[in-house]
Amino acid sequence: MIYMAIVKSIKENVVYLTITNPEKLNSLEPEDWGVMTSQLKEYESGNERFLVIRGDGDNFSTGAQLSTDTVSLMSDVTNMAKTLWSLNKPVIALVDGLIVGAATNLALMCDFIICSNETKFIEIFAKRGLVIDFGGGWLLPRLVGLKNTNRLALLADSIDSKQLVELGLVYKSVEKSDIDVELNNLIKELNAVSYNSICQMKKMIRAGLEMSMDDYLDLENNVQLKAFEHPDGIEGAMSFLEKRKPDFK
Amino acid sequence: MIYMAIVKSIKENVVYLTITNPEKLNSLEPEDWGVMTSQLKEYESGNERFLVIRGDGDNFSTGAQLSTDTVSLMSDVTNMAKTLWSLNKPVIALVDGLIVGAATNLALMCDFIICSNETKFIEIFAKRGLVIDFGGGWLLPRLVGLKNTNRLALLADSIDSKQLVELGLVYKSVEKSDIDVELNNLIKELNAVSYNSICQMKKMIRAGLEMSMDDYLDLENNVQLKAFEHPDGIEGAMSFLEKRKPDFK
Amino acid sequence: MIYMAIVKSIKENVVYLTITNPEKLNSLEPEDWGVMTSQLKEYESGNERFLVIRGDGDNFSTGAQLSTDTVSLMSDVTNMAKTLWSLNKPVIALVDGLIVGAATNLALMCDFIICSNETKFIEIFAKRGLVIDFGGGWLLPRLVGLKNTNRLALLADSIDSKQLVELGLVYKSVEKSDIDVELNNLIKELNAVSYNSICQMKKMIRAGLEMSMDDYLDLENNVQLKAFEHPDGIEGAMSFLEKRKPDFK
Repeated sequence: MIYMAIVKSIKENVVYLTITNPEKLNSLEPEDWGVMTSQLKEYESGNERFLVIRGDGDNFSTGAQLSTDTVSLMSDVTNMAKTLWSLNKPVIALVDGLIVGAATNLALMCDFIICSNETKFIEIFAKRGLVIDFGGGWLLPRLVGLKNTNRLALLADSIDSKQLVELGLVYKSVEKSDIDVELNNLIKELNAVSYNSICQMKKMIRAGLEMSMDDYLDLENNVQLKAFEHPDGIEGAMSFLEKRKPDFK
Repeated sequence: MIYMAIVKSIKENVVYLTITNPEKLNSLEPEDWGVMTSQLKEYESGNERFLVIRGDGDNFSTGAQLSTDTVSLMSDVTNMAKTLWSLNKPVIALVDGLIVGAATNLALMCDFIICSNETKFIEIFAKRGLVIDFGGGWLLPRLVGLKNTNRLALLADSIDSKQLVELGLVYKSVEKSDIDVELNNLIKELNAVSYNSICQMKKMIRAGLEMSMDDYLDLENNVQLKAFEHPDGIEGAMSFLEKRKPDFK
Repeated sequence: MIYMAIVKSIKENVVYLTITNPEKLNSLEPEDWGVMTSQLKEYESGNERFLVIRGDGDNFSTGAQLSTDTVSLMSDVTNMAKTLWSLNKPVIALVDGLIVGAATNLALMCDFIICSNETKFIEIFAKRGLVIDFGGGWLLPRLVGLKNTNRLALLADSIDSKQLVELGLVYKSVEKSDIDVELNNLIKELNAVSYNSICQMKKMIRAGLEMSMDDYLDLENNVQLKAFEHPDGIEGAMSFLEKRKPDFK
């Protein structure tokens, strides 16, 4: 049984995890982290192709609730971050309204963020006497450089959807009412390319962040050789020769 | 006694180091590097909370003066760069007019740069037959990517405040006459958040540049647990529960 | 003798390698990779100072042709990528029209890209069931961050010259008819600075991508000491003292 604050639903090949605690601005209860971790693992080993994480109602999430057992809490947060980072299957964050604290970095760790124009994004930690968590201090410098990281993390500046676009943090920013339309467009785009390509590239690119160029080129060589022999690689070659659109399974 | 080209002053909780050699465009004498290194260490171990580095008059600094003893010079430059990079306490560069050579990278290594609209920034090295120093060749690719780094370092292009903003290298660019006002705003912002958060995040984020995500997440876990028990973490939680602004010491 | 699809010419101190297979949109035959690798090595050890890679006619290149011997193909692609990445001498890509697949990442590995306003850039791999190669999955996150990398690589989005400029991937985008004028301007700029500085910085900056800041600062120290004693460093100092433009050899 799934703890009710994290509501799971499946539609076609997409799993939706909806943070459902709207009266508390979708803040995450201590139990939620473990539930989400289990859900991530279930998605990775399951048959669905896409995972969408979103918030119920008008806010994405305001991050972790206070807990008296901080050791357990941080262990669960860290564990979820490691799990999310390790997924080879794609993850999309749909962001609207408040996105605060650990929730910001949870979304940044997803492959694509679609946000509404009513998004308000705050790395709130410095205003709570805490430090940036959920891997944000590792990821942000690699997304927006060290100078922008300082502004976001050290000053805990609030930024809006326009600034998120300028910083290159979101895939697209749309009107609040268009967010599901845009999600469908993105999933349609993702369905048009090879799913094996997506997963293999995601894995390879993340590995590359921690390797030398030379070691990476050897890895790339091996992954590409397997891709050539995968049904998608064969269909890619066939469709190219036959001058038609590929039909990946 | 402080060598007079580097003038130190303290106002409230801010240390100011002013490069004071205006008739030589605030270029740095061979002795200045060691003096600044000592000052950085004194700041790190002292009671003041913020360090501001600026130039006297209309220019920030035109970098290192020529020296006959290049071995000593480079040893001192390298030593200052390592020291500045190792500081956990925040450093702000106030930039106006010419900022050239090693001075550019000294400023880039600071956490925040406020520049005036009359700033002229040049990684001059290639025009002197030298290579980019003070860590600039390591830092620039992590700030603006490799392509922009090539333009700045290999071509020694001069760029102005508008381009510095576009590249995301400065926190803010303001009218020359507003630079001190903007500094006060920034320090006010910094004073409003937890000082422990700032220093711990600064340390953690820099460490993260040289770690794998997984190792970083373990580090983050430990730092966050200590932050929860720090007076600022306790005040952060209390103020949140009591729905009031935190009053960090 | 050079395989005719890669046409080499030399003008003054510039080597031009022109991909010449226009009826096949300048796609690269299996033999071309080895030929280019040899040419890169010849350039690195030769007397010319600049290498320009371009396509014949209206397109840069559409990347690798299909091959039945994928093991050989990938070995040759990987070998060329390692060789191009290892060059200390500067390389410029002149890009027009279609630039697709491995050709995109070949160009991104060059130090400067000048593109025409008719450029169409596609990391096509996911549409062929393959993975991004020629080091693109390592380089792109370091050029444009992970979020933009996902859009380019996972979605195989086509982007134009305007977007290439916005992403900071190209040195300049110009009218198709001005591309050679702009190349001449760039080479003139490069000829005005120290060639030793360019090569030493290029080597040092790439090494820095795989080192800690502290180790890099030690490397920088050593490279700078040698630069001071190089004829260009001496001329740089002399010209500065004599208040004249340097005359680097």
